[in-house]
Amino acid sequence: MRKSANLRAIRGRLLWFDDDPALAGEDAATRYFEDGCLVVEDGIVRAAGEASDVLKKIADDIPVDDWRPFLVMPGFIDPHLHFPQTQVIGSFAGELLEWLHTYTFVEEQKYADPAIAEAAARFFLDELLRNGTTTAGVYCSVHRQSVEAFFTESERRNMRMVAGKVMMDRDAPAALLDTPESGYRDSKALLQRWHGRGRQLYAITPRFAVTSSEAQLEAAGALAAEYPDCHIQTHLSENHREIATVAERFAWSKDYTGVYERYGLVRAKALFGHCIHLSQSERGRLGAAGATAVLCPTSNLFLGSGLFDLAALRAAEPPPRIALATDIGGGTSYSMLVTASEAHKVMALRDQPLPALAAFYMMTLGNARAMGLAQQIGSFAAGREADLVVLDTRATAAMGQRMERVRSLAEELFALMIMGDDRAVAATYVMGEPVYKKTG
Amino acid sequence: MRKSANLRAIRGRLLWFDDDPALAGEDAATRYFEDGCLVVEDGIVRAAGEASDVLKKIADDIPVDDWRPFLVMPGFIDPHLHFPQTQVIGSFAGELLEWLHTYTFVEEQKYADPAIAEAAARFFLDELLRNGTTTAGVYCSVHRQSVEAFFTESERRNMRMVAGKVMMDRDAPAALLDTPESGYRDSKALLQRWHGRGRQLYAITPRFAVTSSEAQLEAAGALAAEYPDCHIQTHLSENHREIATVAERFAWSKDYTGVYERYGLVRAKALFGHCIHLSQSERGRLGAAGATAVLCPTSNLFLGSGLFDLAALRAAEPPPRIALATDIGGGTSYSMLVTASEAHKVMALRDQPLPALAAFYMMTLGNARAMGLAQQIGSFAAGREADLVVLDTRATAAMGQRMERVRSLAEELFALMIMGDDRAVAATYVMGEPVYKKTG
Repeated sequence: MRKSANLRAIRGRLLWFDDDPALAGEDAATRYFEDGCLVVEDGIVRAAGEASDVLKKIADDIPVDDWRPFLVMPGFIDPHLHFPQTQVIGSFAGELLEWLHTYTFVEEQKYADPAIAEAAARFFLDELLRNGTTTAGVYCSVHRQSVEAFFTESERRNMRMVAGKVMMDRDAPAALLDTPESGYRDSKALLQRWHGRGRQLYAITPRFAVTSSEAQLEAAGALAAEYPDCHIQTHLSENHREIATVAERFAWSKDYTGVYERYGLVRAKALFGHCIHLSQSERGRLGAAGATAVLCPTSNLFLGSGLFDLAALRAAEPPPRIALATDIGGGTSYSMLVTASEAHKVMALRDQPLPALAAFYMMTLGNARAMGLAQQIGSFAAGREADLVVLDTRATAAMGQRMERVRSLAEELFALMIMGDDRAVAATYVMGEPVYKKTG
Repeated sequence: MRKSANLRAIRGRLLWFDDDPALAGEDAATRYFEDGCLVVEDGIVRAAGEASDVLKKIADDIPVDDWRPFLVMPGFIDPHLHFPQTQVIGSFAGELLEWLHTYTFVEEQKYADPAIAEAAARFFLDELLRNGTTTAGVYCSVHRQSVEAFFTESERRNMRMVAGKVMMDRDAPAALLDTPESGYRDSKALLQRWHGRGRQLYAITPRFAVTSSEAQLEAAGALAAEYPDCHIQTHLSENHREIATVAERFAWSKDYTGVYERYGLVRAKALFGHCIHLSQSERGRLGAAGATAVLCPTSNLFLGSGLFDLAALRAAEPPPRIALATDIGGGTSYSMLVTASEAHKVMALRDQPLPALAAFYMMTLGNARAMGLAQQIGSFAAGREADLVVLDTRATAAMGQRMERVRSLAEELFALMIMGDDRAVAATYVMGEPVYKKTG
């Protein structure tokens, strides 16, 4: 390997996945090197494996960041969260619609102000990096300027981000409404400006069928048809009141999924948040379209929305893609570790407990696949963008005490996800560059 | 107020409860002083109220610990957790009985070694204090030496603790079994040695009906009859497999609660962990006996045990006392804040979301009442033992960001319990003395 000013080696307990441990088997899916090393050139993974093999292929003067005994994994991916909701996390309400109207729709109005949106974007991306999250699927507010602020900051940090302007033309305060025409026009302008610029990707983002008229969903579908490689993100079947409202307003549709289908919004790279109360027909239709169901466990518990049914989704013919996300600010933590812990808890109530390797797969390659980005991120296969997280499994006294007893990587990872939070993130790298290091 | 070498004032945003906000109303139940002050003499609360009133009654040279703008509350009370399980937190298993046999019964065998028990007691009590917990209901292991180690350390710290030797004479590895006779004899010796010694209180602790024979439950009942002021602690109706096992082994009993009733173990100061799957008859019988049902939400989610039904317990005639606990190590966090957050989540799934004031009542006076200790701890009423916690509601970046938007104490407390953990505990006092201060 040639010497280069942009070459860097990162040594640690290297862990990533080539496949889904739940389907391919844990041994076949997992790549783990107790003394591993990753070589990054110009931000791209060039080699990853045993340190003794990898290091002898590079020049002696290449800098090595030695993180042993910490784990080094692909950066976490959070496919569903709301950038303008950082300041409504943990607002008390009975359920989703009450929570939206009492807190969220009040807060999101502030994002008409570019200065507020810019400050919030900095905080939000800092917080993602502190939690080891390097890629996210992000809902901005209805205002163009919130999307500008978000992408400007994300581009400055060279982070791989998927984001879009929320489209909503009813059932919210007037200051938060666009129209079918303005929603289409603003989304298209933002898409043309940001989609594919550096690592930025645009997501067409009708909030959900409750807050979009038929005309707006049709406009969103038209935009989606013009840009078949763009992501679509929306909400589906989170809450009984929401579902009843959709059934009433779209009485012509056989079910909730049918509304989005009618407007061409169910396809590959379409990310549907929640998907809790779907019928088996809906699950299969999501699967046939190549769409993704996004589990948001801290949110689903916090708002009492219900229990995601992974087994039923996996049993659909064909199964949809499955992702795992925080859903800040209905979700209660930016940490994908906390999110995985709550996913285990949601699924344990359904007698489908979530093993650690399956969970860490979801946070990395699983979410990359679910977002159609597995060629770019989510693993340490050669050619991938070198976003990564360094994890200290003994970050707190209680974790250190626990780790004295673990007998396997799987036990260690499970305790990490159950007990860990942002404190377990020792460092985060974007495109091979350290962008966050824990202090203290 | 006279000058004394043992007088200390603690200033801050003072908060405690005189009653249950869910029953008495939030305004009537809550005592809150934005600039409050507590005066402690010889470890006992002498006065608490507006700083301007309280401070003018004490001499100028009395030391004042000024914690403004932090909250100062009665120390948290954790009525159900297992001291020998600090190192099995977050061990993966399908459900309760598998988890017990695979991890917990292996771990608890180590506590035959006094050195291990002593080191663990130090760690465990450090961890409680780090989380603001000053009183707990503690299961030790089956070994006398684990109880000795625990109480020795707890007495050294002058903490108000309730603990006992687990009695179990079947269905576990031989090294963990006592007999009806030895369980009775050892428990009685420990009780005589520790009950009422300083602040230590003994709890008669048959683990649960699965691991105790009828002869052992009878012996536990005999001991309970001899010591009517002692606590009793055990598990009840946590898990379907456990319930089925009990139904099979005690076929003569109409239900699970009936087993404990038969042996005189259902009474005031009897603490029943979990109580998830009770019938309405059982709930009412617990209530009529003055017994306590203990909600352990992180554990119930972690092990997929089920959803505690607070509304059904409250609707029982009469309702039992209700407590909130971590259940370490089936529970996943030592933090009562995290525990309250998970309690909200469990209850939100039942459409019974838990408001903040009700939750903070439960962690303090509510748990004191449920343990029959409201004359000693749980509030700042004059004469109470001055155990307290100092809370920083902006302890993390995400919390600080959130707190910029809160408009009321209730909103602040709710965000604190949803987003907070041990980092929110700035200090913990036992009997008026600072015993933990957060660093960094």
